Amino acid sequence: VPRITAARVTPIAFRDPPLLNSAGVHEPWALRSIIEVEIEGEVTGLGETYGDEPFLTLLRRCAEAIVGLDIHDLNWVKRAAAAVLAQDADLACAAKPKTVDEGVAPRLYGAFDVALLDAWGKLTGTRLCDLLGGAVREEVPFSAYLFYKLARHKDLADGWDDGWGEVLTPEQMVGEARRMMAEHGFGSLKLKGGVFDPEEEIAALEAMHAAFPGAPLRIDPNGAWHVHTTLKLLRRLEGVLEYLEDPVLGIPSMAVVQNATQLPLATNMCVVAFDHFPQAVRLGAVQVVLADHHYWGGLRATVELARLCSSFGLGLSMHSNSHLGISLMAMTHVAAAIPDLTYACDTHYPWQGEDVIAGGRIPIRNGGVSLPKGPGLGVELDRDALARLHEQYQRCGIRRRDDAGEMRKYRPDWVMRRPRF
Amino acid sequence: VPRITAARVTPIAFRDPPLLNSAGVHEPWALRSIIEVEIEGEVTGLGETYGDEPFLTLLRRCAEAIVGLDIHDLNWVKRAAAAVLAQDADLACAAKPKTVDEGVAPRLYGAFDVALLDAWGKLTGTRLCDLLGGAVREEVPFSAYLFYKLARHKDLADGWDDGWGEVLTPEQMVGEARRMMAEHGFGSLKLKGGVFDPEEEIAALEAMHAAFPGAPLRIDPNGAWHVHTTLKLLRRLEGVLEYLEDPVLGIPSMAVVQNATQLPLATNMCVVAFDHFPQAVRLGAVQVVLADHHYWGGLRATVELARLCSSFGLGLSMHSNSHLGISLMAMTHVAAAIPDLTYACDTHYPWQGEDVIAGGRIPIRNGGVSLPKGPGLGVELDRDALARLHEQYQRCGIRRRDDAGEMRKYRPDWVMRRPRF
Repeated sequence: VPRITAARVTPIAFRDPPLLNSAGVHEPWALRSIIEVEIEGEVTGLGETYGDEPFLTLLRRCAEAIVGLDIHDLNWVKRAAAAVLAQDADLACAAKPKTVDEGVAPRLYGAFDVALLDAWGKLTGTRLCDLLGGAVREEVPFSAYLFYKLARHKDLADGWDDGWGEVLTPEQMVGEARRMMAEHGFGSLKLKGGVFDPEEEIAALEAMHAAFPGAPLRIDPNGAWHVHTTLKLLRRLEGVLEYLEDPVLGIPSMAVVQNATQLPLATNMCVVAFDHFPQAVRLGAVQVVLADHHYWGGLRATVELARLCSSFGLGLSMHSNSHLGISLMAMTHVAAAIPDLTYACDTHYPWQGEDVIAGGRIPIRNGGVSLPKGPGLGVELDRDALARLHEQYQRCGIRRRDDAGEMRKYRPDWVMRRPRF
Repeated sequence: VPRITAARVTPIAFRDPPLLNSAGVHEPWALRSIIEVEIEGEVTGLGETYGDEPFLTLLRRCAEAIVGLDIHDLNWVKRAAAAVLAQDADLACAAKPKTVDEGVAPRLYGAFDVALLDAWGKLTGTRLCDLLGGAVREEVPFSAYLFYKLARHKDLADGWDDGWGEVLTPEQMVGEARRMMAEHGFGSLKLKGGVFDPEEEIAALEAMHAAFPGAPLRIDPNGAWHVHTTLKLLRRLEGVLEYLEDPVLGIPSMAVVQNATQLPLATNMCVVAFDHFPQAVRLGAVQVVLADHHYWGGLRATVELARLCSSFGLGLSMHSNSHLGISLMAMTHVAAAIPDLTYACDTHYPWQGEDVIAGGRIPIRNGGVSLPKGPGLGVELDRDALARLHEQYQRCGIRRRDDAGEMRKYRPDWVMRRPRF
């Protein structure tokens, strides 16, 4: 029986451009946690997840709690995660996501699920996708994730430049899209909206629709629009979008919008846990669910989510946060094993330049990521890179993501509001 | 990569008592198919499934079609099964279950799913439950499956006696229950109903309720009751049952009954495929789904079904047909890996005396089956027993189960009708 002999959690920080969204603007450093699970000294399984401080503390407690368990005993690891949460209700509350109605338990468990499946694959010479039912595709399609952005971070001592310049107008957004498509071959385009007046954002969508005819378009205002604003915009959006992601907040409001249009609504904000399905289905709130193994409870749970979606005739796509290569590989393996993946997946990966995996960054070509041939996730740690990014974590001073606080460095009166428009 | 080098399907027949149900009476021989999947000559994975002729032909075609596939590629095996069905629409139709609205594809795929997971476990020294998320229980609870029955089969040349005698009255049923409980320690009791007038069957339930106070009771009329008969009986059933299984046929009728009572309705007849959930959930038709890996599409699909049920607040129990030890072990492993198994599982196993597994029949003690320690399913074939039961298949002359035809040997005017009462 292969048992967990040690589990480590290493917080890291990496450069992040000043990307705008309805919650504010990205800080100069994004946080993640890298999970390593050792199996009898022989094999190390890797995972990557959120890096905010309260969650990091939970990860470390969970890492201690799972030592000694059989790596196949995912149900027991799940219980261990639940027990860690039950021991400290205040911490569990602090680690709870604030903008969505979602528990911490699947996030905490999910971080270790990936590492254990990676270890299992490595121990048996099996690709991770083959532990999930086998690959139905060797290449997973991703979409370009387009952001409005500032040219530079304010007050950054070394004046780091992300090289993408300012993107605030429809013309600049077409330029960003063109470069994303040229560099990675993306076929579909997702605009992170909720930043400017919807009229301006629709102008950007229309400019892209004209510049790239036939390329599927999406916009994600992250709940920044009022229901009645959204209802008035629907006819114009129907002409250009493949789906509309989270224009409004909450299942009931999403249902009002979805029931007024044939345009599919997608969500990673109102259907974010299995027990959200009954209400969502009853009200017909969405037509596409965005999977994300980080918060749905790992890779097996994501396969289960796919079954649930197909049972109810819902489409499936994939959500992303700022992440590095271990997460990208986990997303790729699970997406490869899901027959009914109906849309290209989101990824922030092109916005990052650093990574902690050996051999450098994973290429995205022709809009897709190829499954690696190696066992498990197919990637290994570059320990020097991990040490470097951990040192960045120690130096950067950021411990909890705060896009709103960062925004106030530019506009001191800025207040986070949803809906805003 | 472990590849399938050969796959064999062996039809078998084994002794079956004259058990009564709403479709007629069991014939003297029950049919099953035993699946063997060879992995590079090293390891054989085992499965057990239905044995009726059209389905047997499909199994054999599918066995040929999967040779050469990687055993992890369950998604490809699923496609191979679908392709076999697509090639012969008439045969696919002939093999389709007649009393439930259910496709053949999950049945066909499911038969090989178990054998491949067994092989995978054996190749890696891993228990099958550990390929499904790990055991949350080492012992799986089963219920006593009580049948009205005739003393002897008619026209059986050798006059074989099942040793249980005639069971037609409430007193005889209490006796059957008492012996089942004494021999196997069952805690809960399920009565196969739909045979006699509901008043008589409720009298049997009330007699058991008096004889075994506290023992959870169920009745399964297999859709033999009219909706309005059922509605009139509800108040009395509420007093004695833990759940009421398929009193009526179809999701809409079940919903009428469920909406008239707090007594949970369970089903293995109206929610038998994933795409039945939307209607069932919308109408609130049932509170318990009976899993059965043989027709839900294998063991992983059963875990997915469990997730679906818990997402919608539905209970989960397990359905059974006449089966032998390979199926019992598959049921036990998947039930062990499902956290939200909310009721003891059904099994016909105590009604059978033969088996094809090495070491003889699997004990059911204290109402439960223990997970074996060995890898995979934890059982191996007894090749002499397999040959003997295959010879019985060749001799018995039965090729498709026909409980109604068998019933007409006793009552020539008997016609299958649902609802009957």
